[in-house]
Amino acid sequence: MITLDLSNLAKVKNHGIPLKNLKATPAQIGTHLKKIENRKQGFYKIIDENAAVKKIGEFADERAGKYTDIVVLGIGGSALGTICLQQSLKHLFENELNGLSPFPRLHVLDNIDPSLISDFEDLLDSDKTLFIVVTKSGTTPETLAQYSYYFHKIYQKKLYPRDHFAFVTEPGNNLLRRIARKENISCFTIPENVGGRFSVLTAVGLLPAKLIGIDIEKILLGAREMRDSFLNPDFSKNLPYQLALTQYLLAKKGKNINILWPYSQKLIRFADWYRQLLAESTGKEGKGLTPVSALGVTDQHSQSQLYNEGPNDKLITFIKVKNLGPCMPIPSMLNGPDTSFPDGLTFNQLMQTEMQGTIASLTKNNRPNITIEIPEVDEFVLGQLFMLFEGATAFLGEMFNINAYNQPGVELSKTITRKLLQNK
Amino acid sequence: MITLDLSNLAKVKNHGIPLKNLKATPAQIGTHLKKIENRKQGFYKIIDENAAVKKIGEFADERAGKYTDIVVLGIGGSALGTICLQQSLKHLFENELNGLSPFPRLHVLDNIDPSLISDFEDLLDSDKTLFIVVTKSGTTPETLAQYSYYFHKIYQKKLYPRDHFAFVTEPGNNLLRRIARKENISCFTIPENVGGRFSVLTAVGLLPAKLIGIDIEKILLGAREMRDSFLNPDFSKNLPYQLALTQYLLAKKGKNINILWPYSQKLIRFADWYRQLLAESTGKEGKGLTPVSALGVTDQHSQSQLYNEGPNDKLITFIKVKNLGPCMPIPSMLNGPDTSFPDGLTFNQLMQTEMQGTIASLTKNNRPNITIEIPEVDEFVLGQLFMLFEGATAFLGEMFNINAYNQPGVELSKTITRKLLQNK
Repeated sequence: MITLDLSNLAKVKNHGIPLKNLKATPAQIGTHLKKIENRKQGFYKIIDENAAVKKIGEFADERAGKYTDIVVLGIGGSALGTICLQQSLKHLFENELNGLSPFPRLHVLDNIDPSLISDFEDLLDSDKTLFIVVTKSGTTPETLAQYSYYFHKIYQKKLYPRDHFAFVTEPGNNLLRRIARKENISCFTIPENVGGRFSVLTAVGLLPAKLIGIDIEKILLGAREMRDSFLNPDFSKNLPYQLALTQYLLAKKGKNINILWPYSQKLIRFADWYRQLLAESTGKEGKGLTPVSALGVTDQHSQSQLYNEGPNDKLITFIKVKNLGPCMPIPSMLNGPDTSFPDGLTFNQLMQTEMQGTIASLTKNNRPNITIEIPEVDEFVLGQLFMLFEGATAFLGEMFNINAYNQPGVELSKTITRKLLQNK
Repeated sequence: MITLDLSNLAKVKNHGIPLKNLKATPAQIGTHLKKIENRKQGFYKIIDENAAVKKIGEFADERAGKYTDIVVLGIGGSALGTICLQQSLKHLFENELNGLSPFPRLHVLDNIDPSLISDFEDLLDSDKTLFIVVTKSGTTPETLAQYSYYFHKIYQKKLYPRDHFAFVTEPGNNLLRRIARKENISCFTIPENVGGRFSVLTAVGLLPAKLIGIDIEKILLGAREMRDSFLNPDFSKNLPYQLALTQYLLAKKGKNINILWPYSQKLIRFADWYRQLLAESTGKEGKGLTPVSALGVTDQHSQSQLYNEGPNDKLITFIKVKNLGPCMPIPSMLNGPDTSFPDGLTFNQLMQTEMQGTIASLTKNNRPNITIEIPEVDEFVLGQLFMLFEGATAFLGEMFNINAYNQPGVELSKTITRKLLQNK
């Protein structure tokens, strides 16, 4: 059960929101849902596509044991969800386990820096590698450049492309689809009505996740449960609406910076995934929220000073994980005067208590903050979280009265880049 | 040679700075330098401490070949500089090279999440590990909890603590110093007048760097060269002052968010290091700049929309790396219609051209931006960059008329946490 605690908003003086404003009638929520429906977006519908999941499962079965490494070639929405799935659901040092894991390693190459590609050469055994090329349009230049680079490697080694590539792209007849047909490469679909930043629950995230042993059905179950909440016109039961309304009301009070601050090492990449979702969906027409990722307890020692005493221009959303993992007591000091830790205190308790202290301090300093509590970080909960934030972002778009699904502001730089390249 | 290009500030309409305002007299700079001098801070003086460097070198020589793993136990300023040094100056997949590297692996455990500590168990061979415990005060609870945990391990294995621990802490008689004496553990000094976030060029960063084969003398040479610039009353030669003045003048125009956007995979952790420096130094008395780390080209596909068309409340500082690494041509497509890449285009050129496109687009959209150009990412340049941003932050503190070296805003949460722990 995920809960959302908004109570500190009422405790914060001047900079918060009175409880009486934190509400909406079923009619209001219904109107927003209707508007979202009219946008014809698929992000909350694709999670029912059993055929897509089945195809991923069959591919994974067929290729089981063939690869030591899975390499995702993709950027932005084609990479961030996958990076999050790995960080949240796998061993935190999975790629350093030297063969102790029964699953292939996963690498997401979401940059074209030559030192990244060159250093990666020292890891790469292309004989045992599957490259998953992810680009919705099939035309992303960074991804095509990488594809071309690795295709040459496979070609030079006289390996079969179909054994070493899989594509994830939109339906139709784009470049990737044509190559797939020619080379008999497996092709997975990103539905046309799902934007890159909303695509983690399609093959974009689910294919690599499945190949490294993540239970993708369970992710979808979680997402479906949160969709029920998203579609519920009862404010008290609609967590995405509650979150969006909080963000919107505080934006109107000048809190334009949104910190997402999970107290969980496993969720820091979730915050990075959300950073794209919020920035690209809301940042237009001079409006929008600037997302910032933070990590507890680590960033207490990096950002707390600013959040407590800097400009009061932020909403801080904590994610509290009830069960952080194994129960590990902090041993008492053997060789010095004792610290102030009570006997038998666990790392879990220390982390939770520090979080409590951080939240209490921010509230006392009149910094608006809310807390999402989740039972643990697993597939089901992560599915819920994806849908919670996607749903909230959809509502936020309607509240801001903008189209949350386009990104007109990135065209200019692409045009300039193309022209510069043509003149080279 | 590092250069700072401010010219786009004059091209940006309404939201920029006219060139005539981008200047300062030697007397003005001298006044600020005098104020900084009066704060009696050591960050620009400690880089002359040859004795400290010699001690680190001797320790590294004595312990050469003894460890497969170096583990830093530290958080905030005790961790971020070290993480940056590793990311910037070592192989990007150093810890996944499975013994191909002649140097020990480095792990920085800057969190107390039980899943982090528990997952790390699967990597840890304590017989061959050196733990470097870094806490200036010697009382950081997270670090002491970790120390206690790993000390128990060493103790249970009947290993000598002095073979498996080194301490980095302030002078005097704090807890760590007392343990060090009792257990005969090597102790390295953080000078009292150097705050955690300014301490990367002390043993905090230099000891782990040296142990993994980084040329620390060259880092200090670079830092010294930039200090000459920092102390130069000639505006045209004082890069830290130019940077600080830009930040300050734009803050007065409501640009309170500072994006640091290196186009270099190796520099993303540098941006994270700076994130603490800027946040904790300026975020007080209701003033301050909110730092955001970005990475080129990756974040073009995540943040560009917001930066181009969202609220005009940001200063974007690009870092351009002239030589990004090996020359790697993008092969032409073998199995499909050609993309628009010109023949022989390299990954380096594609990355630089995309950066050019991004900068041109932001400028056209009247988004204030500046560019720091560096020749490459190596020890010398990194030393320069540390000092450039530390110096700029020192100037910024004086311009904002605040004490850039304290962090009063973190005390409240610590007090609350202590009380909560006592009642457990």
